[in-house]
Amino acid sequence: MSRKTVILLSGGMDSATSLAIALNQKYECYALSFDYNQRHGAELNAARKIAETYKLPEHKIFTLDHTLFGNSALTNLSIDVPETESDEIPVTYVPGRNMIFLSIAVAWAETLGITDIFIGVNAIDYSGYPDCRPEFIKSFNEMANLATKFSVEGGAFIIHTPLINLSKPEIIQIGHKLDLDYSNTVSCYQSDKEGRACKKCDACRYRRQGFLDAGLEDVTQYA
Amino acid sequence: MSRKTVILLSGGMDSATSLAIALNQKYECYALSFDYNQRHGAELNAARKIAETYKLPEHKIFTLDHTLFGNSALTNLSIDVPETESDEIPVTYVPGRNMIFLSIAVAWAETLGITDIFIGVNAIDYSGYPDCRPEFIKSFNEMANLATKFSVEGGAFIIHTPLINLSKPEIIQIGHKLDLDYSNTVSCYQSDKEGRACKKCDACRYRRQGFLDAGLEDVTQYA
Repeated sequence: MSRKTVILLSGGMDSATSLAIALNQKYECYALSFDYNQRHGAELNAARKIAETYKLPEHKIFTLDHTLFGNSALTNLSIDVPETESDEIPVTYVPGRNMIFLSIAVAWAETLGITDIFIGVNAIDYSGYPDCRPEFIKSFNEMANLATKFSVEGGAFIIHTPLINLSKPEIIQIGHKLDLDYSNTVSCYQSDKEGRACKKCDACRYRRQGFLDAGLEDVTQYA
Repeated sequence: MSRKTVILLSGGMDSATSLAIALNQKYECYALSFDYNQRHGAELNAARKIAETYKLPEHKIFTLDHTLFGNSALTNLSIDVPETESDEIPVTYVPGRNMIFLSIAVAWAETLGITDIFIGVNAIDYSGYPDCRPEFIKSFNEMANLATKFSVEGGAFIIHTPLINLSKPEIIQIGHKLDLDYSNTVSCYQSDKEGRACKKCDACRYRRQGFLDAGLEDVTQYA
């Protein structure tokens, strides 16, 4: 019997690498993406393409009320995506995003009878979002195991974060070894409709530097 | 300056009582309801009516993808709502419901700059749902305080559960003292379009017995 997992798939390089790792560990992967009116809609197209490439048994795209996340540069076109580095949590922060995404992932997993959930969060080369940190994931996992019928009846959800302590070049090297085609992934916060990247935002900078430090060709399509 | 809270408002008697308590404590209440294709759609109409009656500054109805909760008797018309008591978690259980509702409440609160959240969960006269228990709420609150920018910057969300240790008659007596009109609330899992109750489901039984034990007139409209 194959193991099954619900896997969060944004269409970016981290979630795609987390998928490649789960598949390599022989998980049957049920992918979950969210349409929250992210300005980088090309990211969702990338998620679709990745799910198709790997012939996943299911790829669910869950639409969230577009007014919920209206206060972030990732959803509100009147707030500019920053193109310089900063020590603060940037305006691309989306309130409670991973908390909501994981809650829905756990609910879907319970419905499917699945206990394992993969999320490609990374607390090393990232923008400083609070919901990418190990302490958040640990606390969320504990909470999820009090929240559901499945857990009350003795089951336990396991949230896997295979990338959490890896640097960007390490992530890229792993994906490369697993034959992941990164040209299918979109990281840029403000890519154009075809998914071509700006080369300037946080996400582009981490990605570009990652390829460079990994000693691998940057296959990103730039505008 | 008035205090503000995000308050979960289903349209049932518990959330309405929790609202009456918050208003009595001088909170300005931002109400949040969810349309998840619940079979008791009259519940949402009740929530609207309650929000209007109390002239709340905002009542947000958040639509959740109707396929998410498809496995419960509350959303799937092919599963009958049970009309006899049982010691098990009943088929009206909705996977991860309060986890998802509270996650969205916290995200909305962060967007509004609000730190207090009210939820009318009750762990005494209830159907045994895991996400109504104090240990779940406590764990969720801890998790929420690791999940957001607001909490990383030193703030803390407070999840208020004024009903959690009250019996149904105690809840009804409090609401009654606060002049809450329970005829505006709908508890029944399978009420008709006008909100008239079946008198048979778990929710109806707890409510009916509650009025009886409180020594107050049952103002529920029955079909």
